[in-house]
Amino acid sequence: MSTTLTEKKMPEPRNGVDTPTLLATINAVGAQPELAQFRFRAVNRWQQGTHSRTRIQSFYGAGGEQMHEREFTYDADHPTVLVGRDQAPTPVEFLLHALASCLTAGIGNIAAARGVTLHEVESTLEGDIDLQGILGLSDRVRNGYRSIRATFTIKGDAPAEKLAQIVEQSRKRSAVYDVLTNGVPVELMVHAG
Amino acid sequence: MSTTLTEKKMPEPRNGVDTPTLLATINAVGAQPELAQFRFRAVNRWQQGTHSRTRIQSFYGAGGEQMHEREFTYDADHPTVLVGRDQAPTPVEFLLHALASCLTAGIGNIAAARGVTLHEVESTLEGDIDLQGILGLSDRVRNGYRSIRATFTIKGDAPAEKLAQIVEQSRKRSAVYDVLTNGVPVELMVHAG
Repeated sequence: MSTTLTEKKMPEPRNGVDTPTLLATINAVGAQPELAQFRFRAVNRWQQGTHSRTRIQSFYGAGGEQMHEREFTYDADHPTVLVGRDQAPTPVEFLLHALASCLTAGIGNIAAARGVTLHEVESTLEGDIDLQGILGLSDRVRNGYRSIRATFTIKGDAPAEKLAQIVEQSRKRSAVYDVLTNGVPVELMVHAG
Repeated sequence: MSTTLTEKKMPEPRNGVDTPTLLATINAVGAQPELAQFRFRAVNRWQQGTHSRTRIQSFYGAGGEQMHEREFTYDADHPTVLVGRDQAPTPVEFLLHALASCLTAGIGNIAAARGVTLHEVESTLEGDIDLQGILGLSDRVRNGYRSIRATFTIKGDAPAEKLAQIVEQSRKRSAVYDVLTNGVPVELMVHAG
């Protein structure tokens, strides 16, 4: 027990996570909840057909405007079988990337905070979708995925049960898992002409 | 009216959309709904800390296994202010990319089907999130975005009202808008140890 307490009091950097700074950050936000208010942004521009490009750089958080260290640019398109030009994955595939990377980031942080060294975290995600929805062929078929499955393989210097608990804790605190499973209000404004 | 009917019967390629093939594809799927069953996939691998990498290439659809023309690879990370190394945007920023690109792809297709030539489609998306949720500081704060705003600017050779209707139709048939606003069941499996 005393070892566990010591570990909690003096967390070490682990898994590439600066654990002391992470825990200090959480404490700082706990003392000043306004630091927790974040606003993320993306600017998208149509290229042609179903192909568009998104730029991501600035965001608000920790009490002020922030910038990623560089601007990130991502395309999206439809595949040729859906009459796109396959310049990039489809928008719905980026949902799978968002979910996998959110759960995995949480696993990295939580493992470090619990003193577990990770050896490997890999996940395979699949989403099932009936395109009769978006193609306007059926009003009984929803437009989006009807289900998503995520399968994680996790290896590290802890018993299987403890590793599985880290994944479960990440799920409980995942922003993307929350948005995908519970939904979020989206407001759409249009300036036309 | 007869002009409109003629346009509908003989759609031309427009906006980079092969409109005749698009409409033929929709008709083919209408006659054979099993072609509409798609399964998209992503494989993610933890790098270090909150940094992971996703590979996207194969998917099932149109009655068989398909491959994107090349493998696409995307990273995600947390920014330095959240004790990540800022190797890529956060997972929640990819949700904004997915939403913007899905709505914009629909706008490209729908405008072509309606005989409207687009000059410009740009969108700015913002998502508000209180990190007290994911940091475990409050159980009354959700983990994900509490709201998302999308502002579209659309220009083309049609009246403002018709352009706005194209955006609205895209929203009504957007897979990502549906998933984000209505949620989707996510099944999580773990192989640990």
